[in-house]
Amino acid sequence: MLKIGVLLSGCGVYDGSEIHEAVLTLLVLDRAGAEIICMAPNIDQYHVVNHITQEVMKEKRNVLLESARIARGEIKDLKDVNAKDLDGLIIPGGFGAAKNLSDFAVKGPDASVHPDVKRLLSEMVETEKPVGAICIAPATLTKALSSKNPEVTIGNDKDTAAAIEAMGGQHKTCTVDMIHFDDRNKIVTTPAYMLGPGIKEVSEGIQKLVDKVLELASK
Amino acid sequence: MLKIGVLLSGCGVYDGSEIHEAVLTLLVLDRAGAEIICMAPNIDQYHVVNHITQEVMKEKRNVLLESARIARGEIKDLKDVNAKDLDGLIIPGGFGAAKNLSDFAVKGPDASVHPDVKRLLSEMVETEKPVGAICIAPATLTKALSSKNPEVTIGNDKDTAAAIEAMGGQHKTCTVDMIHFDDRNKIVTTPAYMLGPGIKEVSEGIQKLVDKVLELASK
Repeated sequence: MLKIGVLLSGCGVYDGSEIHEAVLTLLVLDRAGAEIICMAPNIDQYHVVNHITQEVMKEKRNVLLESARIARGEIKDLKDVNAKDLDGLIIPGGFGAAKNLSDFAVKGPDASVHPDVKRLLSEMVETEKPVGAICIAPATLTKALSSKNPEVTIGNDKDTAAAIEAMGGQHKTCTVDMIHFDDRNKIVTTPAYMLGPGIKEVSEGIQKLVDKVLELASK
Repeated sequence: MLKIGVLLSGCGVYDGSEIHEAVLTLLVLDRAGAEIICMAPNIDQYHVVNHITQEVMKEKRNVLLESARIARGEIKDLKDVNAKDLDGLIIPGGFGAAKNLSDFAVKGPDASVHPDVKRLLSEMVETEKPVGAICIAPATLTKALSSKNPEVTIGNDKDTAAAIEAMGGQHKTCTVDMIHFDDRNKIVTTPAYMLGPGIKEVSEGIQKLVDKVLELASK
C-alpha cells in the first residue's frame, strides 16, 4: 500500500487549505487504495479571514488544529514527518499554502518557506519521490526548491508566473482539467482554483495529478 | 437547471458540517449541472471543538461564517431562503447538524430545531420537493418533521435509531454505500460517517443520495 502525505495549511481558501482541493485529493487517494498521511505545521496562521467579506478578523488560529478539521482528527505535526515515511507527497492549494507554508502571498519572490516545508520537499526530491502541488502551492514549492529549477503550472496568471520565474522556476501554462509534469524532479502540478470555475473542473485536474503521483510512487 | 440548496452547519465534523460529506455533495451536484445554493443560519456555534483532542475550546465562532469556508464565500443566510427558491434541499452531516441546526446531540428526543431549519423543511415537504439528509442530519430532520412520521436511516446505531423512533420517525437500517428513500415524504437519507469507514465508501452513498434528490427534483 502506497503511503502518500497530504500537507495541509489550515481550513478555508482565504487563510488555509482550499477545502475542495484537499477533500478531492483525499477522495482520489482513498479510491486508489493509498494510505493517507495528513500533516500540517504546528504554528499560528498568518491571519484569520472572514470568508464572506474577505476581511481580516481579530482572531488567532493554529494551522495544525484547523487542518485537523479536514483530516477528521487524523493528522501529524509536520516536524515529525520525513521523506522516508512517504512514497509521495501532495500539497493542496488555498491561500494557506502561500501564507502559512510560506509567505509568498505577502512577499512574492522574496518569500521565506517554513523550514520543515523546505526540509520535507528537499528530502522528497533528493530521494526521487514524487510531489504534487495544486493551485498556488507550486509557488511555495518553487521557492523551496529553487536550486532544482522546477517546472510548474499555476494556470495562466501572468504576475504569479513571473514571480515563479523570478524564484528560479519555469512556468508552463495549463488548463484546469490538466497537469504539468516535471519529469526531471518528479513534480506534478495542476491549476485547480487558480483557474476554476468550479469543483467539477477542479476535480478533473486533481484526479490526473493524484493518478500521476501514485504512478510515479509505485515505480 | 435545477436549484438545489445545501444547508450547512459550520466547518468540521465535531462542531459543524462534516467537511467530506459537504464537499462530496457539492461535487456530485456540480457534475450533474445543478445550481448550488449554499446556506446556513447566522448564529453562534453551540461550541468550538479542538479537532485533534476533541476537547471544547474557549472560542466563539459563527455558523454562517464558518460554513462560508466550505462554500468559498458563496452562501446565503438561511433566514432569506424559502422553498420557492429551491427544487430540492440536502443537509450534510457532522455534529453541527445536531448541535447547531438543532440540539439533538445534547438533548436527544427532547431536542429543539432552529426555527428557520424547521420552517424550510416544512415548506419543502408541504410543496412536495425532495430533501436529502446525510449522517446524523436525519435526526434533526425527524424532529422538525415529526408530524409526518418520516422514514430515515442513520445506519445501524441502536441508541440513535431509538431516539428517532421516539421523535415520531421510523428508522431503517442501511449500509454506507446505500440510501433509504421515504417515497411518501420524498426524503432520502444515507449513513455516511455514522458508519464510515472512509471517504471512498461515504462517497458511494452520497452519490446515490444526490442522484435520487435530482431525479425527484426534476419530476
